[in-house]
Amino acid sequence: MEKHYAERIVSVPRSFIREILKVSIDPEIISFAGGLPNKEYFPVKEIQAAAEKVFASVGADALQYSNSEGLIELRELIARRYHEKQGLDISPNSILITNGSQQGLDLLAKALLNEGDAVLIEEPGYLGAIQSLSLYRPRFCPVEVGTEGLDVAMLDRVSTASGAKLLYTVPNFQNPSGVTYSEATRRSVAEIAKKNDFLIVEDDPYGELRFAGKMKTPLYAYAPEKTVLLGSFSKVVAPGFRLGWLVAPEGLYGKLLVAKQAADLHTASVNQYIVSRFLTDNNLDDHISKIIDAYGGQCKAMVEAAHRWLPPQVTLWEPEGGMFLWGQLPAGMDAMELFDFAVREKVVYVPGAPFFTNGKGGSTFRLNFSCSGAAEIEEGMQRLARAFAAYAASGKIRC
Amino acid sequence: MEKHYAERIVSVPRSFIREILKVSIDPEIISFAGGLPNKEYFPVKEIQAAAEKVFASVGADALQYSNSEGLIELRELIARRYHEKQGLDISPNSILITNGSQQGLDLLAKALLNEGDAVLIEEPGYLGAIQSLSLYRPRFCPVEVGTEGLDVAMLDRVSTASGAKLLYTVPNFQNPSGVTYSEATRRSVAEIAKKNDFLIVEDDPYGELRFAGKMKTPLYAYAPEKTVLLGSFSKVVAPGFRLGWLVAPEGLYGKLLVAKQAADLHTASVNQYIVSRFLTDNNLDDHISKIIDAYGGQCKAMVEAAHRWLPPQVTLWEPEGGMFLWGQLPAGMDAMELFDFAVREKVVYVPGAPFFTNGKGGSTFRLNFSCSGAAEIEEGMQRLARAFAAYAASGKIRC
Repeated sequence: MEKHYAERIVSVPRSFIREILKVSIDPEIISFAGGLPNKEYFPVKEIQAAAEKVFASVGADALQYSNSEGLIELRELIARRYHEKQGLDISPNSILITNGSQQGLDLLAKALLNEGDAVLIEEPGYLGAIQSLSLYRPRFCPVEVGTEGLDVAMLDRVSTASGAKLLYTVPNFQNPSGVTYSEATRRSVAEIAKKNDFLIVEDDPYGELRFAGKMKTPLYAYAPEKTVLLGSFSKVVAPGFRLGWLVAPEGLYGKLLVAKQAADLHTASVNQYIVSRFLTDNNLDDHISKIIDAYGGQCKAMVEAAHRWLPPQVTLWEPEGGMFLWGQLPAGMDAMELFDFAVREKVVYVPGAPFFTNGKGGSTFRLNFSCSGAAEIEEGMQRLARAFAAYAASGKIRC
Repeated sequence: MEKHYAERIVSVPRSFIREILKVSIDPEIISFAGGLPNKEYFPVKEIQAAAEKVFASVGADALQYSNSEGLIELRELIARRYHEKQGLDISPNSILITNGSQQGLDLLAKALLNEGDAVLIEEPGYLGAIQSLSLYRPRFCPVEVGTEGLDVAMLDRVSTASGAKLLYTVPNFQNPSGVTYSEATRRSVAEIAKKNDFLIVEDDPYGELRFAGKMKTPLYAYAPEKTVLLGSFSKVVAPGFRLGWLVAPEGLYGKLLVAKQAADLHTASVNQYIVSRFLTDNNLDDHISKIIDAYGGQCKAMVEAAHRWLPPQVTLWEPEGGMFLWGQLPAGMDAMELFDFAVREKVVYVPGAPFFTNGKGGSTFRLNFSCSGAAEIEEGMQRLARAFAAYAASGKIRC
């Protein structure tokens, strides 16, 4: 059978994060390694009510095949929200409903990437995107992310040298670093995209989960004709529907639609009806504000507990929203080595190295705060402190 | 923007069937052109009850991210049904839940096809499959379908000459021809696959919709290690969930799982819970028998009306199940030319030529009977008879 495999699939690396998640199944483990939204804030009752209404009022039509673009009511609701929340004028006809924003990436790669095409990625960057794009065998060109977002001088240099076709970016509360691009960075990224003629893929799954600071301008607003926006209901409603969307310029939209038809005809119609009903009958802002309050409190608790318990040389990048806290270990420490001690203390996180494609990032790590209450965070940080102590006592630290 | 498109997406042909469906929107048109299951037989009440139970008993977990393989309960239900209905021993661990069987095709192509690889397809064949596979730029090698199924001598010859990697086949009530492979054909196809070392992709969306004749042995039973089975709830429950599955040998399964993760992480968890509940609480056989009774009656009505009204030289391939009736026009007539006269009489069907990749099939056509009652079928056939008369009177027929 092996000889039958496509070249693209043979070279995909195993996911280290999946290995970690296997360790996390032990119920005694406190896991800061996940990336899930907190299910306590899923609006189960409201979704149930919406589903009942859909079955009663739409009936069989909600269960029939539907168009590949997606339900027009849902696309109108998304367009209206872009207008109200971000001042963006987006036509429902430029919105394509996808199975989560992950599918948006696959469709974009299918429509845009020839083997060997250069793709600009954030470093550290979102692994799901890198995995999805890697099946189309591009050449990845990493650009460093700092506390202000992408290093724009490096972006200019690398995009010029590589002739890159697209940039994949998460400008709000990035996964894994939690970083939000500054306004100046956004303006520069858009200018460089125009100058060097590459497409910006602006993935924004966490943008509405802001618990500190002020909203920034979407890259789309600076360069609408050079930007594809990806959005998702996974973090603000629930991920189990697999409902996301993309916004694309007209010509590209047609190509993405062909790719969507070929991929799975259309996204589940019943889910689109239910979420449309939910959004119409409920105030999404009120719902999101509950999530923000919770995540903001959990993030604060985690930062404070880290300061209380972890060695003072550990640096943390405090995010203004989202679900992740990014950290850097003191000189000489390695997050993968610390991980083994942490598992023994029954606490896990994600070492940062897998988010880098060039072997860097060994001293970095990612903590998830969306799924842990204050008490668990406190206990987890104490365990992590013990792991640090054991690591220090092991003589493994290089200095 | 154009210069940014991937080569694979630029060459995808426009779908003639989509053009026809646009014509069909006119409410005065009687359409035999569709390919939808009849929504009158969607179990809306039972689905609603299943959904209520899921929200009440599973709650938030049904709305959370889940694994890429699919819900184990659902995979067990599918495995049990294979055992009970077809005597196949299939492990739930070799089943991967997909967004309809259409996604199964995309994942298979991703895992198996390098550009230029030879793929054996039925001629006439299912357009959705051809479109999906064509994005991976294989070389299509058509093999003719007759009333007994694939021409096995041609299959042997073409697979040997091309070194084909896989065969895409719909052995039960094929779309578009309605043909069911004979037992002898099945045995030969499996033998040739083993001998010439290609993988059989056995797509079986209609297999349970048999209203005449006896069930045949799945190709999978003759060559389990060389076959990937594709299945779907679209025709026996409802398509709006986008729930299908594939059954694959172990090594290939791992590759398909990577492709699934990259494509959209997993199929909507809430839909998997609801359909599992529906299948557990209801007797699917009883439900399917209602669909079979209806479709069988509609097929009979269509065949009889065709004999009553259409020119006697029109030949029809009477199917034993499924949703389609395949026909052949008298010598000198062209189904695409007849189509224009049919639209004027406000009846439409699908000309057969698009189902062929080599310019043949001009005299063939496909009629769908699943969505029309007896009275509509009778009226539609009278209209089609008038279209034949107008075509004959036009002097366009070559003879």
